[in-house]
Amino acid sequence: MNRITSRKRVTRVTLGSSRTVRDDLLAVEEPLEIRVGGTALAITMRTPGADFDLAAGFLVSEGVISRGDEFAAARYCAGATDEGLNTYNVLDVTLAPGVAAPHPSLERAFYTTSSCGLCGKASIDAVRTSSQHAVSHDDLVVDPAVLVTLPEHLRAAQAVFEKTGGLHAAALFDGRTGRMLVLREDVGRHNAVDKVIGWAVKENLLPLTGIVLMVSGRASFELTQKASMAGIPVLAAVSAPSSLAVDLASELGITIVGFLRGESMVVYSRPDRIGTNAAPDALPDAAPAASAAALVTAVSAS
Amino acid sequence: MNRITSRKRVTRVTLGSSRTVRDDLLAVEEPLEIRVGGTALAITMRTPGADFDLAAGFLVSEGVISRGDEFAAARYCAGATDEGLNTYNVLDVTLAPGVAAPHPSLERAFYTTSSCGLCGKASIDAVRTSSQHAVSHDDLVVDPAVLVTLPEHLRAAQAVFEKTGGLHAAALFDGRTGRMLVLREDVGRHNAVDKVIGWAVKENLLPLTGIVLMVSGRASFELTQKASMAGIPVLAAVSAPSSLAVDLASELGITIVGFLRGESMVVYSRPDRIGTNAAPDALPDAAPAASAAALVTAVSAS
Repeated sequence: MNRITSRKRVTRVTLGSSRTVRDDLLAVEEPLEIRVGGTALAITMRTPGADFDLAAGFLVSEGVISRGDEFAAARYCAGATDEGLNTYNVLDVTLAPGVAAPHPSLERAFYTTSSCGLCGKASIDAVRTSSQHAVSHDDLVVDPAVLVTLPEHLRAAQAVFEKTGGLHAAALFDGRTGRMLVLREDVGRHNAVDKVIGWAVKENLLPLTGIVLMVSGRASFELTQKASMAGIPVLAAVSAPSSLAVDLASELGITIVGFLRGESMVVYSRPDRIGTNAAPDALPDAAPAASAAALVTAVSAS
Repeated sequence: MNRITSRKRVTRVTLGSSRTVRDDLLAVEEPLEIRVGGTALAITMRTPGADFDLAAGFLVSEGVISRGDEFAAARYCAGATDEGLNTYNVLDVTLAPGVAAPHPSLERAFYTTSSCGLCGKASIDAVRTSSQHAVSHDDLVVDPAVLVTLPEHLRAAQAVFEKTGGLHAAALFDGRTGRMLVLREDVGRHNAVDKVIGWAVKENLLPLTGIVLMVSGRASFELTQKASMAGIPVLAAVSAPSSLAVDLASELGITIVGFLRGESMVVYSRPDRIGTNAAPDALPDAAPAASAAALVTAVSAS
């Protein structure tokens, strides 16, 4: 059985018409327990597939690893059920020798679900993770004409969404050329992001200098934090960001682009990374570099 | 300051035009720590507002309370910061005398975020909560002509979404008349659902017999579980459900309606609760009651 989509018998009802019964494809959602060295660290509701990437990206997001060679191995655990079966829903990660295991206070405290990424923090003060990768000085400048092509690339590569209408997607793009490096889909936005970051750490691409992380939905605090942990300078979203996402991005020097649709977008932080785009015959740009810097200051202080 | 929306300076960029700088309203996202009797139970990233409802609904979802009089009181904690300030982000709930406090194994293990509802479960086996309210025998039959009016009611009442484009909504409707009982908005889907369920438990309306829970996004496992805990027989969503949502709904006898848009919908479980809707001159209904019952069996067994 294909574990990414699941076939169900459904009834379609339309006013004024006879109802029809047919088979439909749904996005699969199953729990994944992530263990490190045999100790349960997190449970997340995810779409099966790219589970090793998901686990690696989760460990990056939580500050446990930051390089591919720190993730030594992972295997699905047999014996996950009373009958000793392998459900492929329990994954045990082995860290490389010398890599510190997750802090004991984190054990059994990470619990995530299909859209959860902050789980496991012992207090509100602890919801912020600290990144090794400062992105404030990343000198990426993205041409808006490149940015507007990303949603179409994302959608075109989203094979499962087309079938089910039910999956979020995240992808990494080269910010200068617009080339897609990787795309992953999941019922949960944060899982999709962990999967692309996990792919990148395993490819030894961290920090992701010059990269745009594009997500299919909204930009939340947690996704901004994940971008920070992976050293990503630009987070682009099809929909709106939250206030806390923008506050954090302003503080860390991450560019947040929202409502990236058609030929336009809204830039919420660090607009200096979005290249000028005035038509040749247009008036001088209304927000030159100096104003943009002042704007960032104004946003950060608000 | 309005804590539901936050004003930010943004830059609008459109290909071929000069960029413009203006103020924009964003949906606020802030952490809420829920304490019970002084003990931290959960942290959720939420949109401030209706926090007492959110806490009450969270406690219903987790099986801690099931009646309004079990929730004795709640107050925001002063002293949440080093300076002793009240951030209105820490809420302490007092349960009524005789109501068992959350099980010790749950303490410090509930951690939720803006779209998280399963957090805090110690193992995959524990992700399922057990409801006091069996909904399988709820004899609600909803007229499809009533159902198709719900998304418009939801959207019309969604004041904040109109301003920010960034909030999820959940609402409770009388399944027979289509009358809206309550609507709540939040950056997180599961928070919006907890808020309407919390409102209902405080109004002593549980179990929510004959009620339709309508959500603005997708129907996940966790939302189906919340419906079950509140005794809600029909969960309707604008978008697709996940496979696990449908599996759980089939098992519990909850009707899931997805893709509720325009004049049509897709029914994923218990279609017998969706009334016949053939036009007077149409052919006999393709899925009469007997077929519908067989369909449920087929779905449950798949």
